[in-house]
Amino acid sequence: MLSQFGGGTKTEETNSLNSTTLDGLVIAVPTSSHGDYIKKAAKNGLGVFVEKPVAESPEEIEELYHVCEQHQVPLCCGFQRRFDKSYAQAAQHVQQGSIGKVSNANIFFGDSPGPSLEFLLEGGNIFYDLSCHDVDFIRWALNDEIESVYACGTSSREELTECNIQDNATMMMTTAKGSIITLTMSRRAAYGYDQRCEIFADQGKVNVGNEFETTTIISDEHGDHSSRLKNSFDTRFRDAFTNEINAFADTVMGKAPWPVKKEDVIRVQQVAAAAKKSLETNQIVYIGKR
Amino acid sequence: MLSQFGGGTKTEETNSLNSTTLDGLVIAVPTSSHGDYIKKAAKNGLGVFVEKPVAESPEEIEELYHVCEQHQVPLCCGFQRRFDKSYAQAAQHVQQGSIGKVSNANIFFGDSPGPSLEFLLEGGNIFYDLSCHDVDFIRWALNDEIESVYACGTSSREELTECNIQDNATMMMTTAKGSIITLTMSRRAAYGYDQRCEIFADQGKVNVGNEFETTTIISDEHGDHSSRLKNSFDTRFRDAFTNEINAFADTVMGKAPWPVKKEDVIRVQQVAAAAKKSLETNQIVYIGKR
Amino acid sequence: MLSQFGGGTKTEETNSLNSTTLDGLVIAVPTSSHGDYIKKAAKNGLGVFVEKPVAESPEEIEELYHVCEQHQVPLCCGFQRRFDKSYAQAAQHVQQGSIGKVSNANIFFGDSPGPSLEFLLEGGNIFYDLSCHDVDFIRWALNDEIESVYACGTSSREELTECNIQDNATMMMTTAKGSIITLTMSRRAAYGYDQRCEIFADQGKVNVGNEFETTTIISDEHGDHSSRLKNSFDTRFRDAFTNEINAFADTVMGKAPWPVKKEDVIRVQQVAAAAKKSLETNQIVYIGKR
Amino acid sequence: MLSQFGGGTKTEETNSLNSTTLDGLVIAVPTSSHGDYIKKAAKNGLGVFVEKPVAESPEEIEELYHVCEQHQVPLCCGFQRRFDKSYAQAAQHVQQGSIGKVSNANIFFGDSPGPSLEFLLEGGNIFYDLSCHDVDFIRWALNDEIESVYACGTSSREELTECNIQDNATMMMTTAKGSIITLTMSRRAAYGYDQRCEIFADQGKVNVGNEFETTTIISDEHGDHSSRLKNSFDTRFRDAFTNEINAFADTVMGKAPWPVKKEDVIRVQQVAAAAKKSLETNQIVYIGKR
Repeated sequence: MLSQFGGGTKTEETNSLNSTTLDGLVIAVPTSSHGDYIKKAAKNGLGVFVEKPVAESPEEIEELYHVCEQHQVPLCCGFQRRFDKSYAQAAQHVQQGSIGKVSNANIFFGDSPGPSLEFLLEGGNIFYDLSCHDVDFIRWALNDEIESVYACGTSSREELTECNIQDNATMMMTTAKGSIITLTMSRRAAYGYDQRCEIFADQGKVNVGNEFETTTIISDEHGDHSSRLKNSFDTRFRDAFTNEINAFADTVMGKAPWPVKKEDVIRVQQVAAAAKKSLETNQIVYIGKR
Repeated sequence: MLSQFGGGTKTEETNSLNSTTLDGLVIAVPTSSHGDYIKKAAKNGLGVFVEKPVAESPEEIEELYHVCEQHQVPLCCGFQRRFDKSYAQAAQHVQQGSIGKVSNANIFFGDSPGPSLEFLLEGGNIFYDLSCHDVDFIRWALNDEIESVYACGTSSREELTECNIQDNATMMMTTAKGSIITLTMSRRAAYGYDQRCEIFADQGKVNVGNEFETTTIISDEHGDHSSRLKNSFDTRFRDAFTNEINAFADTVMGKAPWPVKKEDVIRVQQVAAAAKKSLETNQIVYIGKR
Repeated sequence: MLSQFGGGTKTEETNSLNSTTLDGLVIAVPTSSHGDYIKKAAKNGLGVFVEKPVAESPEEIEELYHVCEQHQVPLCCGFQRRFDKSYAQAAQHVQQGSIGKVSNANIFFGDSPGPSLEFLLEGGNIFYDLSCHDVDFIRWALNDEIESVYACGTSSREELTECNIQDNATMMMTTAKGSIITLTMSRRAAYGYDQRCEIFADQGKVNVGNEFETTTIISDEHGDHSSRLKNSFDTRFRDAFTNEINAFADTVMGKAPWPVKKEDVIRVQQVAAAAKKSLETNQIVYIGKR
Repeated sequence: MLSQFGGGTKTEETNSLNSTTLDGLVIAVPTSSHGDYIKKAAKNGLGVFVEKPVAESPEEIEELYHVCEQHQVPLCCGFQRRFDKSYAQAAQHVQQGSIGKVSNANIFFGDSPGPSLEFLLEGGNIFYDLSCHDVDFIRWALNDEIESVYACGTSSREELTECNIQDNATMMMTTAKGSIITLTMSRRAAYGYDQRCEIFADQGKVNVGNEFETTTIISDEHGDHSSRLKNSFDTRFRDAFTNEINAFADTVMGKAPWPVKKEDVIRVQQVAAAAKKSLETNQIVYIGKR
């Protein structure tokens, strides 16, 4: 990928950002450093691809998009579900009206492999870390907006309970068009990377299911045994990441606009913030009109 | 069934309830008439099987159980999931600890075939009508108690919206042991009777899936096409109903106690009432200790 | 069933066959006694339902159909796949041309629970015992005729090998219309009653799959574990048997002809005989025009 | 891949084969040119990877292995099922005895997309073209040898029938250890690349299933609709091909022997030849001891 699109690594930073042979920059550093890189890239006329979130606060997100607009370079935030064939096909069916008027969606995000206790204790809020991809997806698929959030969380271990850190959480959201959405998240699904979404409407249902490590099934006196789910995002979303980088190349070359807009990036952060606040206050939290 | 257990129909009522050949009474009349029949049966020394709910209000439920206790006859409220092999197997796995410590459950109740608009307009609250079986099941499977409920609903048709009648609704509940449960309900799943339950824990997951009309799959250039889900409760839960009536016979004959207790019957009504109130007030509703 | 259709048991034989209240006779005795009962029933003007095979030899089958024709009573041989929703739906798709021109069918018959070694040693040829239902089905579904058979068998245990008794066997057949059919049979599928049929054509494929004991799936670190297949024919084909008896009632009452004809019954016996001969001679065996 | 392993294209041929920087050669040219390239590579001390078949005749295969042995370079024939996680896992289960004593295997090879009529008319025997991968796999998985073959074929179109060209065919094989294997092949599965293998034994069954384009399922009033199978070998076996090339690199670097031996390569050609002869003579064909 690197050679194909003329990228480089961090150690080549100074040279690469001034390089006349570069068209775009793929940023893969911690969120706190996103801002610096995005600004440098913009000032060098380079389009930027960055994994979600662009920045922690809506204000900083606004600022970074503003800088990129000034320098007329695209700021491309990655939400790989939009580039995944299964998720995209589900969204297309909903948008085409194949299943009628949507009333519900139930989403499951079970991460794998689970992080260490140390990682969990050091922080990282479950809503900020896990909800963004699915909130972006469902807003896009339903062409709808989240208006309220109620969230609860639980801790699977005593050490987490003591520190008030949740590694399992559920959000229930209502939308502008009147749909109800649940999103259940876990930091660790013991049986593999479990990412599903089901959208229910008056004429049918669309479901995005999981991918398995193998298609081998053993049948014995106890029943049928199939393989574990794929273990993590890298194998499950491998093709989506490829599609995403190809789309970034197209955007940098001016062939197609980037589908994720500033408003999308800000809204998913607002929804995560609302979920966090709901859990802390034990209240339903309403999100203002964007 | 009738001949096997010495039952009869309503028109034979007077004779049958005095009959010395009867051991038990299966009541299948509207809820509002349950009380009369239960009292008559108890006074004649007959055990009673009645579909949920035993009565509308917790007070009346208390009274009817009291009458049956006085006459020393069992009052057996039917929740067929407890007698369904798939649901019972899932509960057993959870209770045995096969999947570890439970943190979540996500339940789906899609009824089929959908009722007429007239039926919906005439009343019947979605929480009272649809939530009971799953609330009873999850309390039993997790050996846990519902403590709070947040509920939202939507109307699939303009006529229902105008009358403030919801035909789709979702409840999010928390339990005494700290689990979070979602229950999504619909009066009408266009693709058949969709009844699923998934319980997530730190070592795995248990899922109860649907049954299909046939096992035939057509593969063509568009993909794989399998049959519709079974259309309704009578085919999906046929074996469970048979098991249930057999269990009632065992209870009447003193061979085994009835698994559903007065407290269970009252609690599911309280949860439905809490959900209704939550929707009306747009607040989280807490249910007191039982 | 018995009371519904006025049947009785063997001990009531003398009375029942002369009874004026009887319309039909369901025969469920060993094949060697079929002839006597069929003749008695015919002479008493009673329609007869009998499980396959009607008789061992084509000659005796011919004779029994002749007797029933003379007395103008239907002789109804049961092949339950024709009354099973899944198999019937597959046949219908093929007959309607949904999948185009058929070139292949692959069929699997795994019996369960497996018989004892004693049973196997005492006899019963695997082709006669296991092939009939599937040969009848595929002839009907394809509206085609078997013309040649090549068969091989194996023995899963030393004791069976010594006695030249096969408990696993495979037949490969060609049809008049040019299709190729394989039928793999086993006396014992350790994982349950495994009955599948797949028909392949130039525009697609139709597959009849298995039914499971439950729909419960456990997911753990090793993968997904679903239930065992249904254990035997009585649970797998329960509805088909009910449909079959209802169809017999309709035939006896003159409402509908019985779908299985004399020619069908004879042909499946001829195919079984050809398979047996093929295994014994290690040659391809051709079956003459019917 | 090319840059990683120091390969090149055909136009660089002269230089590349003499290159001191090359360790191995991946040959991807028509079978008739395999011999020349293999000999050149061997003489230059380069290990060779070549897709099956190494050559058309057993004699030429022998010769080419001999040349490579003389020059002490590995001749690595690719059978990608051995490097596919699903097929390899199935083989491992069988070899470990997880399912007991094998009696049967049923294999399906449905190619996709189907070739043009012109391609079919120009030749290419279905047994030589399609049977090799599965015959290699089943020999390896069962650690067994094919001893007899009976094969039939059909033509899906009038033009093919006229030219005696089969685009659908089925082989039934017996093995040295007493198992029976069927292999059903089609030049064109309209619903996608259909590659399955099922191995049946006295304690259970192992099945390798298909992979789908997406995991999206639409449920509507007609049933459940899932995506098409993956369309062809390049997507279905993508990871297997990567594994295969990595294994070739390991072999060239002396880290691991190549798993496919000369005897394997010759035997699959003999089995294809036997199938062709069986179809032509309408006889069971026996293959001598290797």
